[in-house]
This record gives sequence, structure tokens and C-alpha cells, in this order.
Amino acid sequence: MGNFRHTVFFWLKKPDDQSDRNAFETSLKKFIDSSVFVKTKHLGTPANTPREVVDNSFTYCLVVDFVTKEAHDKYQEEPAHKLFIEESSNLWDKVLVYDSENIW
Amino acid sequence: MGNFRHTVFFWLKKPDDQSDRNAFETSLKKFIDSSVFVKTKHLGTPANTPREVVDNSFTYCLVVDFVTKEAHDKYQEEPAHKLFIEESSNLWDKVLVYDSENIW
Repeated sequence: MGNFRHTVFFWLKKPDDQSDRNAFETSLKKFIDSSVFVKTKHLGTPANTPREVVDNSFTYCLVVDFVTKEAHDKYQEEPAHKLFIEESSNLWDKVLVYDSENIW
Repeated sequence: MGNFRHTVFFWLKKPDDQSDRNAFETSLKKFIDSSVFVKTKHLGTPANTPREVVDNSFTYCLVVDFVTKEAHDKYQEEPAHKLFIEESSNLWDKVLVYDSENIW
């Protein structure tokens, strides 16, 4: 795993629409698989773990690790990243990002 | 990596207090290193990536992966987990959890 962890939650406008889900997943996979900088990847959907402190209202959770912050910064500028946003941003209502640098 | 990703953000009451930070990190490390169920671990602090969609207001980001949801459920019940909460919950103001099951 890399030292830099980029966690992104997406809330789709129509989370129950299978056609929107397929379009999102296809577009995202094309981007992530083509990225030169992504070291490890996770795409997940909410687990069934209802507790007071848990927010599982998101549609998708994307986590990608990078070796360094510099690699993350370059990933933000990759043409495939921009294409993904262009293709898919109309599908989501909200995106929330957390960026964390490993200290262990 | 496991199929089940458990992401926890902590906001400490006194994020700039080095003694509180040391106590938190020591207590958490003791717990995570003793867990039978944790497959991979990440403890991070906010990266310097200011963007509109980024929330880097947290003090710590803990990410642990499990092979299955069942392993996660057992981790919630481990005595070392309960000890960590007992030792350290007075140090934080807020905890926010996201649980995500890998589909890739």
C-alpha cells in the first residue's frame, strides 16, 4: 500500500438506477485501470452495519493509494481523470473526499 | 487487502496536544496490533490537499480491512477493542465511520 490514501464517497442522483450504476462503474474502472499513479484500489458499496457512528448513506466508496502526495497530485491532473469527471459528474449529487497520509 | 473496509475518522478534543496524541496513538496501536481479525491497517493524518470537495478537518484516519463482514463484526467485540474505547474515548469529540464492501 502507498503512504497516501485518497478516499472518495459518491452519492449518485439515482442510486437505484442500474443503468446509471453501470455507466458510473464502467467510466470509473476505465479511468482507474489506466492511471499511471494508482497503487492500490478499492471500490465498495455500503456494508450493512447500522450503528450510531456509521454513515453508510453513500452510493460508492472509492479508495486509491499512492506512494507519495506528489503522485496523488499528478493523478488529479491525468487526462483519464478529467475524462471520468466529464463523463460521470452528471450522475452524482455529491462527492466527499478525505486525504490521509500514513504515520504507521 | 480484505473485502471489507472499515474507515474511521477521529476528531480529538485537543488535536494540538502532543500528550493526548501520544496517548491516543499508543492505545490504538496496542489494540490494532493485537486484533486477530485486522488484515491491513492505515493510520493517517490529514494531507495538505485543500479543495472544495475535501474534508481534511479530522485529526486521525484509521482504516482497517477484513476478509469478511463477519470478521469485522467479531473485531467490534474483541476485548482489546473495548479496552481501547475505554482508554481513549475521553480524548475525542467525534467519531465518524464508513463501512464499504469491495465490488472490484
